[in-house]
Amino acid sequence: MPSISLNLMKLILALLALALSALPAAAVEQWGMFEIALPGPASGNPFVDSTVSARFTQGDRVVEADGFYDGDGLYRIRFMPGTTGEWRYQTRSNRPELDGKSGSFTASAPSAGNHGPVGVRHTYHFAYADGTPYCQIGTTCYSWAHADDEREELTLRTLATSPFNKLRMCIFPQDFAFDHQQSPRYPFAGAPPREWDFTRFNPEFFRHLELRIGQLRDLGIEADLILFHPYDKKWGFNGMSAVNDDRYLRYVIARFAAYRNVWWSMSNEYDFLRTKKEADWDRIFQVVQRSDPYGHLRSIHNGALIYNNTQAWVTHASIQNGAAVEDPDRAVLYRDVYRKPIVFDEVKYEGDAAARWGQLSAEEMVLRFWSGVVAGTYVGHSEIFAHSDSSWLAIGGVFHGQSPPRLAFLRKVMEEAPDGEIEPIDKWQDERTGGKAGQYYLIYFGKEAPASWDFSLYKTGIKDGDRFGVEILDTWNMTISPVAGVFTAKKKDGYAFMDAAGRSIVLPAAPYIALRIRRLP
Amino acid sequence: MPSISLNLMKLILALLALALSALPAAAVEQWGMFEIALPGPASGNPFVDSTVSARFTQGDRVVEADGFYDGDGLYRIRFMPGTTGEWRYQTRSNRPELDGKSGSFTASAPSAGNHGPVGVRHTYHFAYADGTPYCQIGTTCYSWAHADDEREELTLRTLATSPFNKLRMCIFPQDFAFDHQQSPRYPFAGAPPREWDFTRFNPEFFRHLELRIGQLRDLGIEADLILFHPYDKKWGFNGMSAVNDDRYLRYVIARFAAYRNVWWSMSNEYDFLRTKKEADWDRIFQVVQRSDPYGHLRSIHNGALIYNNTQAWVTHASIQNGAAVEDPDRAVLYRDVYRKPIVFDEVKYEGDAAARWGQLSAEEMVLRFWSGVVAGTYVGHSEIFAHSDSSWLAIGGVFHGQSPPRLAFLRKVMEEAPDGEIEPIDKWQDERTGGKAGQYYLIYFGKEAPASWDFSLYKTGIKDGDRFGVEILDTWNMTISPVAGVFTAKKKDGYAFMDAAGRSIVLPAAPYIALRIRRLP
Repeated sequence: MPSISLNLMKLILALLALALSALPAAAVEQWGMFEIALPGPASGNPFVDSTVSARFTQGDRVVEADGFYDGDGLYRIRFMPGTTGEWRYQTRSNRPELDGKSGSFTASAPSAGNHGPVGVRHTYHFAYADGTPYCQIGTTCYSWAHADDEREELTLRTLATSPFNKLRMCIFPQDFAFDHQQSPRYPFAGAPPREWDFTRFNPEFFRHLELRIGQLRDLGIEADLILFHPYDKKWGFNGMSAVNDDRYLRYVIARFAAYRNVWWSMSNEYDFLRTKKEADWDRIFQVVQRSDPYGHLRSIHNGALIYNNTQAWVTHASIQNGAAVEDPDRAVLYRDVYRKPIVFDEVKYEGDAAARWGQLSAEEMVLRFWSGVVAGTYVGHSEIFAHSDSSWLAIGGVFHGQSPPRLAFLRKVMEEAPDGEIEPIDKWQDERTGGKAGQYYLIYFGKEAPASWDFSLYKTGIKDGDRFGVEILDTWNMTISPVAGVFTAKKKDGYAFMDAAGRSIVLPAAPYIALRIRRLP
Repeated sequence: MPSISLNLMKLILALLALALSALPAAAVEQWGMFEIALPGPASGNPFVDSTVSARFTQGDRVVEADGFYDGDGLYRIRFMPGTTGEWRYQTRSNRPELDGKSGSFTASAPSAGNHGPVGVRHTYHFAYADGTPYCQIGTTCYSWAHADDEREELTLRTLATSPFNKLRMCIFPQDFAFDHQQSPRYPFAGAPPREWDFTRFNPEFFRHLELRIGQLRDLGIEADLILFHPYDKKWGFNGMSAVNDDRYLRYVIARFAAYRNVWWSMSNEYDFLRTKKEADWDRIFQVVQRSDPYGHLRSIHNGALIYNNTQAWVTHASIQNGAAVEDPDRAVLYRDVYRKPIVFDEVKYEGDAAARWGQLSAEEMVLRFWSGVVAGTYVGHSEIFAHSDSSWLAIGGVFHGQSPPRLAFLRKVMEEAPDGEIEPIDKWQDERTGGKAGQYYLIYFGKEAPASWDFSLYKTGIKDGDRFGVEILDTWNMTISPVAGVFTAKKKDGYAFMDAAGRSIVLPAAPYIALRIRRLP
């Protein structure tokens, strides 16, 4: 293509973007995305030579959002309005062409399905900004957005009917054996495998990720973006200098932070990334915290060594430990030490891999979710089947495992709990029982197969005469069977209440049974 | 007594103390205690009006130790020399009589049984200053030193033949129901129950504690001194102002820090002490850290809410959680999050109390110790039997439980391990196996009663042809039975080595069995 027509096209694109940014305010809703697009200098290295940001104001509210260079002489500043109504803005830049631009727009009420970003609620749980409970059922699909379009669209179709409302995915491509798809896009200018100019981003790479992140958002799925990972012997994106790392982080945040469904995962298996020390991770967390005007959730995923999740910049613990959710007595221990939401993002995977981290039966995967949930924590899924063309874990596609429908069943149970939050009822004593004291109980028997259960609830929040209804949940077969009659509380001893008539409940003597007990009005 | 003879007696005492302080240097050994006694002003309130300290030097080594007023016009400055050889000192005071006194003494080699203070070693373990492993087998006896002499001496005799090398004890008396002995001594001047002058200490109270701490030291027992506790509705020692708390801490440290066997436990069930917030505990930790020139071990014991043990001023986690050592898979989790030695100081108690925290069978108490130990952590004992005159937990005396001899057996096993340190061998996979990879293994079967065990060890540190000897330990009956023959390692799969001849080991099909496997030369 002759350079004259290329430049002309760039100009048209810039003008088009400018025109789009001036569209009526109706196009932007609360927790949606407003974007300012500005033509500016393309000479030199705009990624490092130009700074641009905007100050968004609404009465006393002030939000500072960094912009970014999107190539082709075009700069963008994105903003997620946290409230409805009129917002005004003014840009700042070291380039006169980008500086001092002002304007306003009106954020409309959020449309159906837009509940805003997810944040921490009640110390151990999550909720959307509008107060809707967020009952995390996560999955991991590291490189699904580094595949070809056909596969990526297949993955999206799979997700659309899945129970998963969070997906862990890498920004940088992976080079490990499970990733059969070679990414045709790279985050930096240069040439594979190692001739990169880390000071120049490849906007096309990021535009592609944005497309996918937006599609996840539209499916109601949070994108837990993994900012660094150790699975890179090929390209060296895991061995950049601190200056390059920090520039990369700011660029990613400038591009993605206005997507309401992003979470920031500093790294996968951070301690396996030998080029960085713990102090680097402290710094990386703080760069992200400072750069993100919305305070999206921040975590870091461990290999063998767990990061100090008590640090103020960690919003929730993201734990890899398969053993921790083998029973709820283990899972609960992390709550006490971190006093934050606990997400067991990696508990081994459903599959038939040779490695012991990829051999869980579907039953065991579902058990780990239930064990985590009744302990007041959250769990993540993935799968790896050797017979399939390539694994969900690495590159998405379709599910070959049997756990997803059962996780959908669990998610529905979670969403029906008060506030969608399960708390331990009698901590360090009876971890198989979670719920809300006096109101709601979920008792999970795991691999036990009891034939009956004596009605008995821990004393907190209960008094003589309180009435309860009981259902038997088969967590594997996904059935809910109401138990006939009403159970009336009567003090049994210093710790518990029994049924006034001393009744027991007949159980199916099968594994993976739970009870749901709700107080009656 | 007429005041003239009282004053005369005080003078004689002061002169006597001065004479004793000038005894030949031979009396002080490394990690022993050197004491300077100085007569000084008794008027006003010497506890707040006078400051006194000394600077001890040996070449480049400098240790600043605060002194204290011991009543009767006498001031003392204590010092624990960390090295042998000549030490010089010079005092500093705001009182001319106490200021600028100088002298020297020679610290001799430590006598048998004096291994110095205990510190942290290899992140998760403890050792004495001379390198001797410290294999913690703790017990709790909150108010044993607030009893009458007869009972206190009985407790010491009981301890002398017990396995316990650490004892948790309160400085302040307790008023709860299990404490049948009313303390005749109080830490402050004034009158019970609540007429205290918190600015004036009662030296006699502290002298009595010192006597008992020194006797524990001579028995080889660390005194884990509990500085605050919530069991005080009567006297209000748990509700002092921050200024009074800090003065109390500095006084305690000035008196006790030169005892090599002291540890500082900021509080028992700190979160049940409603008069203080977490920030107060942060401050209290820091006052102790700053005031103690020797860096004795520092921890804090929780009720329902665990303190942030990742804080730099916490040397080890002191955990109350009975459930955490029901199996080693739980115990191990705290290691990862704290990266410090984990001491489960309260795991419920052996006994027959009505409360569920005091009903452990001896078998269960011993199981909790073993579960903790094979997971690379440490455990604490106590007992409460309703039929006894009063409980070991509250006030000492004798043991009524059956666990102590089994804990002696465990301690011996621990001390025979390499460096006295047990590490998880295959973390998050097989927590029943601890030891030192390639060298030494302790496999604990808990309540399982296997009839045989296929020889199999995790791969780390093992190669084909390595030879091992096996013993069967009955942790309850305290027997060690060598297994005939030598087991030779042969790679089994990607994770483990088996016996080259494929042999299994016949086990007694009884609970509480362990295997000890040691590499042969």
